Amino acid sequence: MPKLLHFLLDPLSRRMRLALAEYGVEVQLVDEKPWAPSRQLLDLNPTGHVPVMIEDTGLAVVGGEALSEYLEETRSTTIHLIPGQPIERAEVRRLVAWFDVRFYAEVTEPILSEKVINRFTGSRGNTSGPVMARVRQAREYMKGHLEYIALLSEERSWLAGNQISMADLAAAAHLSTIDYLGDVPWADHPVAQVWYSRVKSRPAFRTLLGDVIPGIPPSAHYADLDF
Amino acid sequence: MPKLLHFLLDPLSRRMRLALAEYGVEVQLVDEKPWAPSRQLLDLNPTGHVPVMIEDTGLAVVGGEALSEYLEETRSTTIHLIPGQPIERAEVRRLVAWFDVRFYAEVTEPILSEKVINRFTGSRGNTSGPVMARVRQAREYMKGHLEYIALLSEERSWLAGNQISMADLAAAAHLSTIDYLGDVPWADHPVAQVWYSRVKSRPAFRTLLGDVIPGIPPSAHYADLDF
Repeated sequence: MPKLLHFLLDPLSRRMRLALAEYGVEVQLVDEKPWAPSRQLLDLNPTGHVPVMIEDTGLAVVGGEALSEYLEETRSTTIHLIPGQPIERAEVRRLVAWFDVRFYAEVTEPILSEKVINRFTGSRGNTSGPVMARVRQAREYMKGHLEYIALLSEERSWLAGNQISMADLAAAAHLSTIDYLGDVPWADHPVAQVWYSRVKSRPAFRTLLGDVIPGIPPSAHYADLDF
Repeated sequence: MPKLLHFLLDPLSRRMRLALAEYGVEVQLVDEKPWAPSRQLLDLNPTGHVPVMIEDTGLAVVGGEALSEYLEETRSTTIHLIPGQPIERAEVRRLVAWFDVRFYAEVTEPILSEKVINRFTGSRGNTSGPVMARVRQAREYMKGHLEYIALLSEERSWLAGNQISMADLAAAAHLSTIDYLGDVPWADHPVAQVWYSRVKSRPAFRTLLGDVIPGIPPSAHYADLDF
């Protein structure tokens, strides 16, 4: 069985877990921590970043960008997550980059770093607790992204077109990380919430709902399909 | 003829220009400036980022990540820039992400922002000149990347394997931006220099060698094939 080296709250790892489940591929999950990458991970990826998938042959696919395309090339059968004609596939990839680059920099990274990662790296020395100014700024940025999700999901069946795609999984992966930490203001964004509940209700999403980080329990509604 | 909305020193735009030239596709270049995106650009991409390609049909492909795959899907004939089997294509994409994410954050972005973009945005208010500490830190990071390029190019014919690929174009695009500004320490990295001179000697590279930004002339050896 292939192995997936991942970190529970890493949005790229979460997208790969969702994609693998949508494709119907079973993998063995191997936990990694960004603040203490294993020897195995560093040997495969000198950056120490996840996700990395190791095939049964021992060949490894490194990084979410490469793995996303690789899975579509090798594992898609009845379901395509980068579907359609080239121009439609370009729209999927535009939105994936929107979330993995822009949403990540503006929202996921600051909230995840301040609330989780910096607790373990001790990168702030003796100061305790998250730097709330960064978290507040990220919450502000998140509003615009939730409005954009609402706009797209009202125009189309799914974010990139008339079927679910990597774009939905990318957006949902980032939001699920933030939602674990209880920072998504769903009540203020009912249209985005409807879209998220559709993604969250898919069988593939169950793979994420049991996640628990020791010392950092999920928000009360994290695993609730009727949130 | 398709149009490419680009910024002269943007590494993703430069990679697209190189790829288009390798594929033999002519485009009309439309200059954009990151500090003053045009109405046309903002209508096509709310982030205001380049590159964006507009097909003759009027359809637009937004962002380097999407455009890279789109060009390979629609324009590759004799030359493939994401070549080979899925596992080989994954290696190309791993390295593209290495340069577009990591090299960009550590090297290109700080040098480009401090030396060029902040001059025009005035984002530093009345303080004049680049913040040299950021530039120096970026130059330090660059050394490790040049060593990595040397390692790969000694193991393989090209960075990702035995033929030129998007990985070479990505690395060369970033380095050509830095080289325009005269900040690549070629003399200390002769193996990386040999690899770069092979990329720079390709006919496709000529598209970049005539670039001149008003007020910011290129370094003395920028267009010199025997640098």
